[in-house]
Amino acid sequence: MATTLRIEAALEGAIARAAASEAPPRLASAMRHAVFPGGARLRPHLCLAVAAACGDEDGALAEGAAIAIELLHCASLVHDDLPCFDDADLRRGQPSVHAAFGQPLAVLAGDALIILAFDVLARAGAVAPARLPLLLTSVTRGVGMPGGIVAGQAWESEPEAPVETYHRAKTGALFVAATTCGAIAAGSNPGPWRALGDALGCAYQVADDLADAASSPEICGKPIGRDAALHRPSLVAELGLDGAFARLQSLVAQAVAAVPDCDGAKGLRDLVQMQATRLAPGHLARSAA
Amino acid sequence: MATTLRIEAALEGAIARAAASEAPPRLASAMRHAVFPGGARLRPHLCLAVAAACGDEDGALAEGAAIAIELLHCASLVHDDLPCFDDADLRRGQPSVHAAFGQPLAVLAGDALIILAFDVLARAGAVAPARLPLLLTSVTRGVGMPGGIVAGQAWESEPEAPVETYHRAKTGALFVAATTCGAIAAGSNPGPWRALGDALGCAYQVADDLADAASSPEICGKPIGRDAALHRPSLVAELGLDGAFARLQSLVAQAVAAVPDCDGAKGLRDLVQMQATRLAPGHLARSAA
Repeated sequence: MATTLRIEAALEGAIARAAASEAPPRLASAMRHAVFPGGARLRPHLCLAVAAACGDEDGALAEGAAIAIELLHCASLVHDDLPCFDDADLRRGQPSVHAAFGQPLAVLAGDALIILAFDVLARAGAVAPARLPLLLTSVTRGVGMPGGIVAGQAWESEPEAPVETYHRAKTGALFVAATTCGAIAAGSNPGPWRALGDALGCAYQVADDLADAASSPEICGKPIGRDAALHRPSLVAELGLDGAFARLQSLVAQAVAAVPDCDGAKGLRDLVQMQATRLAPGHLARSAA
Repeated sequence: MATTLRIEAALEGAIARAAASEAPPRLASAMRHAVFPGGARLRPHLCLAVAAACGDEDGALAEGAAIAIELLHCASLVHDDLPCFDDADLRRGQPSVHAAFGQPLAVLAGDALIILAFDVLARAGAVAPARLPLLLTSVTRGVGMPGGIVAGQAWESEPEAPVETYHRAKTGALFVAATTCGAIAAGSNPGPWRALGDALGCAYQVADDLADAASSPEICGKPIGRDAALHRPSLVAELGLDGAFARLQSLVAQAVAAVPDCDGAKGLRDLVQMQATRLAPGHLARSAA
């Protein structure tokens, strides 16, 4: 609970700074609309949990990385919802940014959130600048070209997309950024933390495919059935509902096993198990229990 | 000439890294299309000239900042050209990115170029991480909210925009980033360099208004008459052609006077005078000569 409040407060601080007095007020509102109320804030929780497991309990650098990654995630949702991509009018149970503010401000809100993410990182990095270059490149790797979430979205504009590359870029890369940045902020070697992010990213992608195929807009807070409508690769289409659910369970086990040995490994393994179990649409999880 | 080649080579290196083998090929092509062939590369030249005037002849950090700023400028052009903003099919004499690749890839190319800019900065910053936080926040200030180019573009979505705030954000802020980053990369105090960027940004904005009102698409390489068509604030509308041209000349003089005393001040003043004179549409400059 303390971590949840900490994440919301840090996001609030960043958004408030962007909305300073000379700011164009509608863009400031659009940015706030994109970030609040949030979803589960999975990625910043993961980043902070890894930093804590590495012995960094309340470091400003880990918090900056966590917030930056969440802002980048929010930016990607704003742009993905645009009419030229998913054309989704609903997000987290409220109008998407372009539905509420129009396309120009939705494009700009996404841009401004990307820039704000790096501003947050830069300010946090002032306490330990020696860690900043690696932290920054770990974030850019998760969001940019050639293999981050922007690349993942772009695979939908290619005549053919290798499914694994597509999913790894669209979803996995930012989870990997979350785990590796938590380690870097704590002064640990990020390498061993990649596998955890990778497994969680895959698990999240399968959960998202399941929700799109088997849930309702009320539960999801966004339109469903979009993968089939947009002919996007989906694990459900490939394996069926039961097969995809079994895959989710195996990926969660893989994620738990991927937590490297460190002082806080036991607590982090429990947390991963608990959080990951929540990913599946409720009725599927119950029927499997 | 050497500096021009150096800028193009560094941009080429960044774009090539983004287009590594696992990249979605069409987005990689769209990014390249957005950056090459370039315009005058005014901002990176300015950044490197300030760094050199401060005694930093061939620093990797100044080069990274210069390239990052140019990539951010290119990203802003790609998004500004989109149908929901200027709806411009022509840029630098060739199809704009959305005209050539479609809207989805134009949105993503802009996003990817923004992220690439920070990746370039991060890599360059590894040689002098202590300078990186201030360098990064100087760049984010020039492009993000509340007063950078994203804010400038967003003022066009407000019912009323204060003209000076609008121009300072839309154009001036990135010139200020170019001068201050040149100084920071060289280890100098950026404060005294703000005025030069500010004056050059204003001069460039007046020159752009003049070109939009008095030039031709062949000379401009983009559609003209857009300010009037889109009801954007324009100095030409306010002062007339002659008045706007006189304002340009006075801003150039102001820029020259704003170069702070430093080892390379004389050379930089000559360069500013020469470059700034080239900004005015040719026939206006000739008729005034």
